[in-house]
Amino acid sequence: MKILVSNDDGIDSPGISALAKELKKIGDVIVIAPLTEQSAVGHAITMKIPLRVTEYYKNGDFFGYAVDGTPADCIKIGIRNIINEPPDIVISGINHGSNTAINIIYSGTVSAAREAAIMDVPAIAVSVTNHDAKHFEYAAKLSAELAKLVVKNGLPNGTLLNVNVPDLPEEKIAGVLLTQQGKSKWDDIYEERKDPYGKNYYWLTGKLMEADNTLETDQFAIRNNFVSITPIHFDLTDYKTYDAMRSWNLPDTFKKKN
Amino acid sequence: MKILVSNDDGIDSPGISALAKELKKIGDVIVIAPLTEQSAVGHAITMKIPLRVTEYYKNGDFFGYAVDGTPADCIKIGIRNIINEPPDIVISGINHGSNTAINIIYSGTVSAAREAAIMDVPAIAVSVTNHDAKHFEYAAKLSAELAKLVVKNGLPNGTLLNVNVPDLPEEKIAGVLLTQQGKSKWDDIYEERKDPYGKNYYWLTGKLMEADNTLETDQFAIRNNFVSITPIHFDLTDYKTYDAMRSWNLPDTFKKKN
Repeated sequence: MKILVSNDDGIDSPGISALAKELKKIGDVIVIAPLTEQSAVGHAITMKIPLRVTEYYKNGDFFGYAVDGTPADCIKIGIRNIINEPPDIVISGINHGSNTAINIIYSGTVSAAREAAIMDVPAIAVSVTNHDAKHFEYAAKLSAELAKLVVKNGLPNGTLLNVNVPDLPEEKIAGVLLTQQGKSKWDDIYEERKDPYGKNYYWLTGKLMEADNTLETDQFAIRNNFVSITPIHFDLTDYKTYDAMRSWNLPDTFKKKN
Repeated sequence: MKILVSNDDGIDSPGISALAKELKKIGDVIVIAPLTEQSAVGHAITMKIPLRVTEYYKNGDFFGYAVDGTPADCIKIGIRNIINEPPDIVISGINHGSNTAINIIYSGTVSAAREAAIMDVPAIAVSVTNHDAKHFEYAAKLSAELAKLVVKNGLPNGTLLNVNVPDLPEEKIAGVLLTQQGKSKWDDIYEERKDPYGKNYYWLTGKLMEADNTLETDQFAIRNNFVSITPIHFDLTDYKTYDAMRSWNLPDTFKKKN
């Protein structure tokens, strides 16, 4: 099994090392990840400036390729120019911090996996639910198991799995649940501060407003110490509203002319 | 009607001026847009560094507020700290270049509108289908009409409208169609070049592979000179795969323990 590994925390992060180490037991692993931290970059891609690719070493050993761009860039240039052919699977992570509910939208980790799905490569995004995450071992083991399952069962083109793992030792994990994206959102607060020259600047902070209360949602599952696996896709069409809008009374500007 | 206007091409772009000018005829307009071009930034938000907000003038007149961040940042900080209350509607655009099919995923224009939808504010993203777009007038007029319709009919929380307008004079527009996100994707090519010091760098280019051939898709609609209106949302759950995965034969690592 040929496995492409990426992330958004940057190639030097402990999460990606733990993931690559475990995946090497089940396949040929190539790491292509951002040179610097790219959290919350969403699905940004680099077009206006060029990208550079460098070999990256950890503890004196070749670890992978560092790209001075975004997670989505890593997958694109990785598949097109570095490995030159699609891998059997892309695994993005292990992210330091959960990517559930609204956070999926902002996540660079998920975007790397989504870029793979766009390129018709099966993909998994994996996160541990704590920015100071300590328990990568179980998440890495589970990623390897899931990778085998995905390659065996296949995923529909355009679908990826978004996996969130509680930051706990394996024996404290309550189980694994198939979930849907939750509705919890951030209550954003921009702290207003003054710089040394008396000018205002604003720093984003806030807290997640818990709006999920069933184990069918990713956010509630992880809060209850379950691993959450959510199949997501990038068909953003709201089909329900599409149907509802047919009954809107459109003014002449909107009428078909032919 | 209180209208917040943003974009991703930057506050100095002709598209946002044409939009603001037309919307002023139907409501109170406040422009809060990126200081610099933010195309293809997706749904990136700024967390690791602070934001600055400056008053921006065009031809000596106050035009709006420039934020040195992403389109999504503009909506967040705009609603939280600049206008301090939700507007009746957010309109993002007019983008120079189409945002159909896969481009929706990378689009900063759409992300500004989506951030509004996340904040439960009705929103519209508007693009004209040409990077050197010249015909903003009809798109601006249509945006104003659509804004009135949206405020009158409402949109479900979390849904936004993604509008694409052919770069044509009004009399050449074939009509207006309600559409779904198309399946056309980019065939990416990274041009490999050498810098003056002999080191490689890579520049993203490519061409859109047309995969849509019915007028129910945004991409085919604009190719046939129709305006395309697509309702989109940010519930990324793939419900079909969610159901299908229930029949996967999960190994013990995945079993519920309680």
